[in-house]
Order: sequence, then structure tokens, then C-alpha cells
Amino acid sequence: MNSDEFRRVGHELIEWIASYRDRMETLPVMSPVSPGDIAQQLPAEAPIRGEGLDDIVQELDRIVMPGITHWNHPGFFAYFPSNSDLSAVLGDIACAGLGAQGMSWQTSPAATEVEDVVMEWLRQMLGLPETFSGVIQDSASSSTFCALLCARERSTAFCQNQGGMQWEEEPYVVYASDQAHSSVPKAALLAGFGKEHLRLIETDDDHAMRVDSLEAAIGNDLACGRVPCAVVAAVGTTATTALDNLQRIAEIAEGFGLWLHVDAALAGTAMVLPECRWMWKGIEAVDSLVMNPHKWMGVGFDCSAYFVKDPQHLIRVMSTNPSYLRTAQDGVVRNLRDWGIPLGRRFRALKLWFLLKDLGVEGLQARIRRDLENAQWLRQQVDATPGWERLAPVPLQTLCIRHVPEEIKGDEKALATHNQDIVTRVNESGHYYLTPAVLKGQQIIRISIGATPTERRHVEGLWTALRTEADQRVASGQWSVVSN
Amino acid sequence: MNSDEFRRVGHELIEWIASYRDRMETLPVMSPVSPGDIAQQLPAEAPIRGEGLDDIVQELDRIVMPGITHWNHPGFFAYFPSNSDLSAVLGDIACAGLGAQGMSWQTSPAATEVEDVVMEWLRQMLGLPETFSGVIQDSASSSTFCALLCARERSTAFCQNQGGMQWEEEPYVVYASDQAHSSVPKAALLAGFGKEHLRLIETDDDHAMRVDSLEAAIGNDLACGRVPCAVVAAVGTTATTALDNLQRIAEIAEGFGLWLHVDAALAGTAMVLPECRWMWKGIEAVDSLVMNPHKWMGVGFDCSAYFVKDPQHLIRVMSTNPSYLRTAQDGVVRNLRDWGIPLGRRFRALKLWFLLKDLGVEGLQARIRRDLENAQWLRQQVDATPGWERLAPVPLQTLCIRHVPEEIKGDEKALATHNQDIVTRVNESGHYYLTPAVLKGQQIIRISIGATPTERRHVEGLWTALRTEADQRVASGQWSVVSN
Repeated sequence: MNSDEFRRVGHELIEWIASYRDRMETLPVMSPVSPGDIAQQLPAEAPIRGEGLDDIVQELDRIVMPGITHWNHPGFFAYFPSNSDLSAVLGDIACAGLGAQGMSWQTSPAATEVEDVVMEWLRQMLGLPETFSGVIQDSASSSTFCALLCARERSTAFCQNQGGMQWEEEPYVVYASDQAHSSVPKAALLAGFGKEHLRLIETDDDHAMRVDSLEAAIGNDLACGRVPCAVVAAVGTTATTALDNLQRIAEIAEGFGLWLHVDAALAGTAMVLPECRWMWKGIEAVDSLVMNPHKWMGVGFDCSAYFVKDPQHLIRVMSTNPSYLRTAQDGVVRNLRDWGIPLGRRFRALKLWFLLKDLGVEGLQARIRRDLENAQWLRQQVDATPGWERLAPVPLQTLCIRHVPEEIKGDEKALATHNQDIVTRVNESGHYYLTPAVLKGQQIIRISIGATPTERRHVEGLWTALRTEADQRVASGQWSVVSN
Repeated sequence: MNSDEFRRVGHELIEWIASYRDRMETLPVMSPVSPGDIAQQLPAEAPIRGEGLDDIVQELDRIVMPGITHWNHPGFFAYFPSNSDLSAVLGDIACAGLGAQGMSWQTSPAATEVEDVVMEWLRQMLGLPETFSGVIQDSASSSTFCALLCARERSTAFCQNQGGMQWEEEPYVVYASDQAHSSVPKAALLAGFGKEHLRLIETDDDHAMRVDSLEAAIGNDLACGRVPCAVVAAVGTTATTALDNLQRIAEIAEGFGLWLHVDAALAGTAMVLPECRWMWKGIEAVDSLVMNPHKWMGVGFDCSAYFVKDPQHLIRVMSTNPSYLRTAQDGVVRNLRDWGIPLGRRFRALKLWFLLKDLGVEGLQARIRRDLENAQWLRQQVDATPGWERLAPVPLQTLCIRHVPEEIKGDEKALATHNQDIVTRVNESGHYYLTPAVLKGQQIIRISIGATPTERRHVEGLWTALRTEADQRVASGQWSVVSN
């Protein structure tokens, strides 16, 4: 493709993106298509002759757009905020156009050094110790996997350079809470610890890890000849944004020599607010932590920030040094291929830079405060409205609630169906999107606030929709409609 | 950022990218900056107040551009072709603007279904069996890591769901050649096999794995009570694009029950040419293979295609199924979060779709044939020119050569310095970029052809530059200048 064709379609795409964002609110949040609807509109084989891209914007509208669930919609309250702010989109456009490979410093010095600088900005913004070093990974799953691999190698005196995990005589054990994100068990299993050596510690009424249970589990493993290796604490769990007691867990980790990794994938963004820093008191003691600028912060997937206290250990676990990758600057620069699993690296720092430059720290803080205030407003409504229950504290932007009509009080099965149906109906309206979830066996309505365009009026609208659906179902006495 | 600001900067960036590509040839291929040059031009702290992005294009030119090594430059002969064709750049722009999350089918059905379709297109284009299923990973490193994790779990009857690697009584062994890419040992070590159970099998004069040595190593491990688990064959090694004998290795793998993974990260692209398919004869027998459309094919990093024969096994190794990720469609769709390590996923299929639609299979084939012909032309020149040696066959687009002046023939140390100096001088010219490499202890000049804009005249120019530098150094008698 020559640059004239690129210009033509490129300018068209800029207008397409701008107009998509402008009319976002008129689109159904969750894609209404059925399995196969999108695929069947594409040819079964790649085109033999090139077709050019003159009709690609029409194709995007016709084929792709109906199959998009709009994560940047003001009515998006599902999963977690995964914002792609337009400033970050511009950063990604520059990244794509440059097509730089940042695997080594030399292969595009700017890709490494801009990442050095913006990760240092981020470290300061989050109130992390000066000794911490950051690197961009693709996802919290990969960051947590890196953490548990590093923990494994520290505990085993680098078993990877000897007989591997399979030659160990004493099993190594990983701890997290029963509210830990699924990426934590996945990482522990892939790292070779085995499900039998993963302890999911029970949580208290606020869904935070019971520290006494953690201590007891460690004591029991030691008594049985097993070696406690790592503990993963959550600052903001997935279901309820519960806050594990980091300071006490850090003391235990230090006492028993465990690697301490913190999963603050969503909640880390709130730490740009000094008034939220109490939530990760003790953070200076951790070995590693992950927070995702590609979630609430608005950077656009993929941009997961992984911070470590001892970068040399990370490098020792991850580095390979074949002749074809050696460069003259190896001793004096960071070669970020040695800071994670993949070798090749996109210039992802650009989108973080663009966002921070555009918004500034104060702009970002204002947006996060808005979301926290919206969550508190909704919490007050729920607490003040008869028939509604809240099942978890609201330290951040997520609410876990359910509707409990008098008629079915105590009937857990009917309550589950009732609340699931409310969510289904609200989702079908197209104005809002919620993901149903189960919290300790109870079906809940989970509301995750924080899409960039979500203002108070959208939260108000959601609350009205939830109450209206609930009341209608009560009025009609329809307790048994099958949800889908 | 509102859509008007986005439009303004977005259109500016489209022009900036187009003009960057147009003037590419006037830029020095390898960035000439020194460590710290880029970082020191950025503020030490994130801006407190938002600055907007009105000056961002100027900032890109001033701060970033000098630190870019231009992988899409016609004089780029280093590492491997990592092309970001403008059609694929447009796909990435659409991806960024949509900001879709493709972790589950439901979270944006189009992200999954377009990937389903284009991976099927790719499967057909590469001549792979109908039973193979493909998924996009970020890099060959991650794909190969997935492969060895799947191998581990198959051999150990899912040790991850039991005691993990550490409870195994017999050690499991992984085989690859001594020319395998560094990602193979990295994956084996991270997967917990341990360096003691990684066998790097010697290679023959053509740098392909010695199949007799592989058989002997397996026999020896069996005799010692170890369990052969997986073998990684290269179709196109990194240093020389050597071709392991896939068919014979497949027979051995089948005979001993080994997982067979093929690393065709670069060379896989050549399989769009029917006349190249002999290179991976036996491919239908493999358990998994990786080829990177983000290399020679032109899709732009990151887009690594990972194909497997048994997707259910991959899913069983990688899947987690917490309540908050369950959706109504789970039984009938692919949830691609269960096909790799990360949970979140960008809509990377768009850039592959855009490229294939724009170029067509024939357009892509023509470009690959051009590169193969350029490599054969250069091979002929080298073979016909006294004083130059070729150290490997040229089945694809990579040449490994060196200059051997009469004056220092047999003096390996002097030859290494001489050839390294030639590369340094050619790189300093700014017109070309080569990476020096060591092949079995010998310093070589490695030429990797295949940047999209590289035409015959650029290869001719490189050859002239190499000969000129070599002859000048001989004429001046400067054998001892320190290379950098």
C-alpha cells in the first residue's frame, strides 16, 4: 500500500473513530449478535487478488460494528472499566505508524527510554518507593505469572538452571485468598506449583483475606515439610474490590521469607489520589506489584504496569543472551526483552505518555474522584431503599448488591433467578451492560463504575432501570422466567 | 479528550505517518543516539496540569524520531524482517479506536469471529491440515511457551491439577537443536523442566538438527530413567534459516510419544508459496506450530499465529472458569482467553484482515518471491566473488557470509574483528543496518532480506557497500581497529 492510499483511508478512519465515539451513547452497549453472525459475513477464503481498502470503513460498519460490545460506552458497568481514551488512541496510532520493535535498547532506543520515563512518572504518581522499577507487560495475567516464576526461582535457588521444578524434594506452596482473580491460580498452575500446593485462604465478611488463616496455613505447611514460597495479596479484588490487609500480610511474608506480590490491577489507578493510599499501606515491602493503566486509567489495552523491587532478579529469571541479541550498549541500558516473557515489544509507552500529557495528573485525579463519588452516591441510594441489599463495602467504584423482595426472602434459588433476570432485562435494553456474578454462592448484581464518559446521570439512569425492572417483576409475580 | 481534538491531532498523525514512510529512505536506518539522549529530553515528572496534544507531533519529531531504528527502511537487513505495512497500520488504527476487549466471545463477538475467520484463511494459505486451529498470540516466545506447557501437561497427565512439576519422580526432557532460538530454552526453563533436562542437539554442516543425535539422546535419557517429553523443530533457524528434517523428527516424536512443536516464526510466511512447502513436509504430524505474520508477512507487531492440532488440550491447560467470566454462549463459541496466557485481548485480527484484503494472496506471494529472488541474486554474487565465503545454505532470505582476505586467512581472531568492523562501518553509513552474529564460534555477516520496501537496488547497494568497506580495510591494512 502506498502512502496516498494510506492517507485516504487513514483520514477516513480518523473521522470514523471520532464519529463512533460521538454517537456511542446511541448504540446498544452489549453486542446483540448471535454466534456465527459476524463470521458468516466474511469470505471463507482469503481474497486471491488484492481488493485494496477503499471499502474498508463500510465493511467495518457492516460486519464488525454490530459485533462490538462497547467498553467505552457511558452505560458500561460490566467487568471492569477498560477505557481507551482518545488521547491514548492517538498514542497507539503513532505506535502503529512507527512500527518500532523495542526488544533491545538498540532496536529503537526511544521505545525503551520513553518507557523508562513514563514508568518512572507512574511510580511517582502512585506513591511507590524510589527503589521500584517498572516495565509494561501485556496483561495482569502475564505480570502475575512473572511474579510467581520469580518467586519460584528465588525460593529454589534458581531451579531452572538446574533440574527444574521436577527435581525439588520439598513442595513449594503459594497463597492467595478465595477472592483472588483467576489469573493467580492460573499462574501458580502454569508455573508448576500444582493445585495441591495452592492455598486459597478464606476471607472475612468484607471479603478480605483472613490473616489468621494465612498464618495457620503457613504453619501447617511448614509442619508438613512443605516450603511456603509466595503470597499474592489483592488491593481491590475482582468481585468486590476488597482490600487485603497488606501491612499484616507483608509482616508475615517477611517473617517466613515469602515472595509478596500485589494484584492491584484495577485499584492501582486510585492510588493517584493521596486520599486512597491508605488502601495499600505497606506497599513498600512488596517484591512485585501489578496495576493496569489499560483499565480505569484509560490507556487502552494492552498496558499493564509491573513494578519490582529487585529488577536484577527479574532479569536473571527472564534473560537469555544469544549472540544475535547482544549489542554494544548492553551494560548501560535496559533491554526490556529481559523483563518479561515475550521477546518482541511494541512501543506501548507512547499511549501512556500521550494520556498523561493530555490529562495531567490533576485531570486524571478529577476523573477518578468523580467515579468514586458516583459509587458513593449509588451506595447511599441502595442503603436507603427498602428491598435492596448491599453485600460488600464500597471502598472504590464497584457495588455488589441484590434485590430481595419480601415475597421470596430466604428462597436463595428464587432470589438468584430474580436478580439474574433483572440483569438480563437491563442488558437487553441496550442502555446498560452489567455482568452477573456469584459472591460466595449468592447471585449478585455487580456494578463496576468508571467508563470515561460515565457521568452521574448515567449512574442515576442505571439505578432507575434496576428498580423499575425489580418492581415490575414483583408486580407481575413472574418469579420463574428463565434467564438467558 | 473530545472528538474535535482527536480529529485535529489524528489527521495530523496520519500525515505524519505517511510522510515518515515516504522519506524513510533518507533517514539513518539505525538510530544514532546514545543511551540517555531520549530520556533526558522528557520531564522528570508527569505534567501536573494537562497540556493537551497540540504539540505532540512536534514532540514526536524532536524527541522520539531520532531514537527510532527504522525496521521498515529499505536498508534494514538486521535481525529479521518485522514489517508494518501501511494496510496493517490501518487495521491497528481501527483496533485502537474501537478499544474492544476480546477476552470472551461475548465481550466483543467480532473480535473473536474475525480472528476465527482470518486464522482459517491463514491455515489454508499455509497449506495446513483442516484439523488445525489457530489463535493469535503476542510473540513466538509466548507461543512456544504455551507449546511446552501443553507438552508438560500431556506427558504428566495434568500435573498442574495435582502436585505440579515438583512432585514428579522421573524428570521430563525437552529437545531442540543447538541452533534453536533463545525463546526455546527460555520456555523450557520457565516451564520448570530445568536446564539439566534440556538437550540442545548438535547440528549438521547445514545447521539442521542431526536426527541421529536426537535419537541417541532420547535413547540415553530413556536408559537413565528420564521421560522424553517434547521436541522443538525449527523450520528456518534464526541464524541461518536452516531447515530441520521435520518428517524424520515427526517419526521419532511419534515413536517415542513426544510433543512436536515447530518454530517457523520467520519462515512460515514463505509457506504461502506452494514451491516452498517441501520445507515443512511432515507438518501435518505436529502438535503445535508458530509462525509470525508480524515478521516477514507485514502485519506489524504483535501478531503471532499459533496453530494446534488438539485445541481442547490447549484449553484444558489454559482455561480458568470463574463465575465472573461465564457467559451464556460458553458452550458454542471460542473464548480466546482460554487459548493462551493473558486474559485480556486486543482486536489484533483486524490488522491481519486488512493486510490480506489489501494485498490478496497473490500480492503477498509476489512480494515473498521477490525477496527470495533477491537472496538468490546476492548468493550468486557472494559465491562468484573471490575473498568472500558463504557459511550456510540459502533456502530463504537470509545469508551468512564473511570476508576472508588472503592476508589474515586462518587467523580467526583477526577475521572476526575484520568482519565486525565491516558491519560497523556499513551501519555507520546510515544507509544499511546489519546485525553481527556468531555462527558456531565464527563471526559472520548476517543479511536478512525482506523489509517491504527493499528492492533489488537496495540489495545491490548493500553488496557494493560491503565490498567497498572490505576492500578499503584490506588496502589500508587496518586489521586492529577496535569495533564498537
